[in-house]
Amino acid sequence: MPNPRPRVVIIGGGFGGLYAARALRHAAVDVTVIDRTNHHLFQPLLYQVATATLAPTDITAPIRWLLRNQSNTRVLMVEVTGIDVATRTITCADTGPLSYDYLIVASGSRHSYFSHAEWEKIAPGLKSIDDAIVIRQRFLLAFERAETATTAEERQRLLTFVVVGGGPTGVELAGMLPLIARRALPPEFRAADPSSTRVILLEGGPRVLPSFSESLSSHARRELEELGVEVRTSSVVTRLERGAVWVGDERIGCETVFWAAGNESSPLGRFLGAPLDRAGRVRVAPDLSVPGHSEVFVVGDLADMTTDGKRVPGVAPAAMQSGPHAARNIVRLIEGRVTKPFRYRNKGDLATIGRHRAIAMFPSLEVWGKPAWWLWLFIHIMYLAGFRNRLSVLIEWAYSYFTYQRGARLITGRRGL
Amino acid sequence: MPNPRPRVVIIGGGFGGLYAARALRHAAVDVTVIDRTNHHLFQPLLYQVATATLAPTDITAPIRWLLRNQSNTRVLMVEVTGIDVATRTITCADTGPLSYDYLIVASGSRHSYFSHAEWEKIAPGLKSIDDAIVIRQRFLLAFERAETATTAEERQRLLTFVVVGGGPTGVELAGMLPLIARRALPPEFRAADPSSTRVILLEGGPRVLPSFSESLSSHARRELEELGVEVRTSSVVTRLERGAVWVGDERIGCETVFWAAGNESSPLGRFLGAPLDRAGRVRVAPDLSVPGHSEVFVVGDLADMTTDGKRVPGVAPAAMQSGPHAARNIVRLIEGRVTKPFRYRNKGDLATIGRHRAIAMFPSLEVWGKPAWWLWLFIHIMYLAGFRNRLSVLIEWAYSYFTYQRGARLITGRRGL
Repeated sequence: MPNPRPRVVIIGGGFGGLYAARALRHAAVDVTVIDRTNHHLFQPLLYQVATATLAPTDITAPIRWLLRNQSNTRVLMVEVTGIDVATRTITCADTGPLSYDYLIVASGSRHSYFSHAEWEKIAPGLKSIDDAIVIRQRFLLAFERAETATTAEERQRLLTFVVVGGGPTGVELAGMLPLIARRALPPEFRAADPSSTRVILLEGGPRVLPSFSESLSSHARRELEELGVEVRTSSVVTRLERGAVWVGDERIGCETVFWAAGNESSPLGRFLGAPLDRAGRVRVAPDLSVPGHSEVFVVGDLADMTTDGKRVPGVAPAAMQSGPHAARNIVRLIEGRVTKPFRYRNKGDLATIGRHRAIAMFPSLEVWGKPAWWLWLFIHIMYLAGFRNRLSVLIEWAYSYFTYQRGARLITGRRGL
Repeated sequence: MPNPRPRVVIIGGGFGGLYAARALRHAAVDVTVIDRTNHHLFQPLLYQVATATLAPTDITAPIRWLLRNQSNTRVLMVEVTGIDVATRTITCADTGPLSYDYLIVASGSRHSYFSHAEWEKIAPGLKSIDDAIVIRQRFLLAFERAETATTAEERQRLLTFVVVGGGPTGVELAGMLPLIARRALPPEFRAADPSSTRVILLEGGPRVLPSFSESLSSHARRELEELGVEVRTSSVVTRLERGAVWVGDERIGCETVFWAAGNESSPLGRFLGAPLDRAGRVRVAPDLSVPGHSEVFVVGDLADMTTDGKRVPGVAPAAMQSGPHAARNIVRLIEGRVTKPFRYRNKGDLATIGRHRAIAMFPSLEVWGKPAWWLWLFIHIMYLAGFRNRLSVLIEWAYSYFTYQRGARLITGRRGL
């Protein structure tokens, strides 16, 4: 006898996929959540792992642990290699094909090097926990190498960090580095002087955090500069090589470059037979389904969604809202009802810059400085998945806050360097 | 003007090297501590990282952070490639040569595959934090793969774990696995049944934990069996291949093999021109110096030390005692006094087996079961370096103790697989 319950497959265990799965917990469906990692990642705090403040386990939790009590749901750790919307089948790298009746694609985005894939080796980006571990390793190794360097020039080159991209990730990274270099590390070094660390933030456009208002954006710039970051706007990287970044004719000597200059969508969007926007996002119908395939939905970063004619930003709250919306539309379809269009509710937008420094933009309110930072802190603790992590993150943060020390200064996996 | 203070170089930031450096904090010497990693590792708890209970950052601390307030000491993260005792020079991989007046070699040991170096890829060992991350990854991946496996045979092979070696590390690993598989994981899996996990401990000799008394050793065996471990003594692995372990003619099908069957000394011992024992340990003089080189000392695991004619075991307390002893002998030499012979004070020996199960052997007392386990816990919390880690370890342990859950079930670095 065939299984009478519709099979819903969700690709991706990020905010979009996880929240979609949770929205189906009481539905009469069989849910399969697929991710190529075993963990849900609390991405807004990823930069804190990259800068050795939090441990990787503080901001991750096994997806199957988060969904363990949801008996209609199974979790598979496999890599999806293709989607055939005609036969409603997904092909995977490590196991046989999977059939679905309804599909939610929530596979997000990766950082993009545009047409310079070779830059990835030199300038790691920050999307996954493995990325964060690599950045943490490079960041900490630069100081270690400065301590054994034999010339002052070499030492200065090793202590120069360039962050490419003035969006939220670039600003977060750039804002943390000087604080750690100047407050936490100096007593431990004898030859190198971590307080002489230079941090340069390169942004191609005219201002940092361009998704915020102009006034908040200039607040952010001023705060970055007060922290000791050299902010250079309208500065497009034209060449990257080991030991140097080029902006036009100017050569900036540096050992370590981090990349936060752009995203490209998950390649799975290309299998859906739907039009894509320039960044590879799938242009979805108002109900988040794929035109021509009412049983396939795309949510989160991978979807080009609009509300009131405005593009929904690729932020965590949009994934948290669109995932469950698609799930509820699937339930509507199963029950023979019509789907509802997605409306993004913008609850405000936050970006943190560094200790006591953040900006926040609400529909009719702008906040910056200390109040915005405490707000950021409060909201992120509230949203952090799972009680355990929240407690250990609180302890790490309290420790860092009062001592300026960093609790996770571990260099692992050097073999790859 | 030459530096008037004698230069003491310490190779290795483990218990021997770290404690030696600390013992020199008030000495009129310039101390250089060299390690190829950036961290001191609390090795007795390494198996807890391998089994996803503690995070790697819980049991590590940057060596330079631990020694930050010791102004006569610098820390270099470099790999030593050679020692020339004639010219008193050390060569390094990443920086120029270093000269010393006094040298303490505390570079310890690695796990050994004897004449089967090719087994390392199949059966990872457990000495470094990177090793522990690899074992954690293999352990967790086995369950993930069992969930997507298509046949019952394949599933059983994936859920069979073999631990080779019945010393403390092998027993700790084998004792943790069934508990996690049967208590923590089952609610999260739909196709695989983690409670059907088989754990087989293979020991080549006649009993597990052979450094303990026969009666404690049989207690340990019984407790392992109660936990669900199949203990096989006098079982020498004759062949290892992907998917199977061979003991003579018997083939044991299994996905995951962990290696805890033997140590070999750091290759640096060979540069000292001193006789080595069969395991590569340096036969030191009673004062821990190298015969013919009174300015070179070897401590910890790498030294073949004796007290009252008995060999000092390669355990953490022996490193913690021999490191400072060598340091004090160096001070004696500088002050024109004679060195003192090292006497190991055996304060007792502990081995943990699993929840509520451990054995402890003191000069005139043997303890096993729950009391030994609580004693083990208490002693390890006391010794764990650094307040911060101790607190977060306590929280993790309390969490695991009461909920049976594991807080660090993160799979990272899959690219290497």
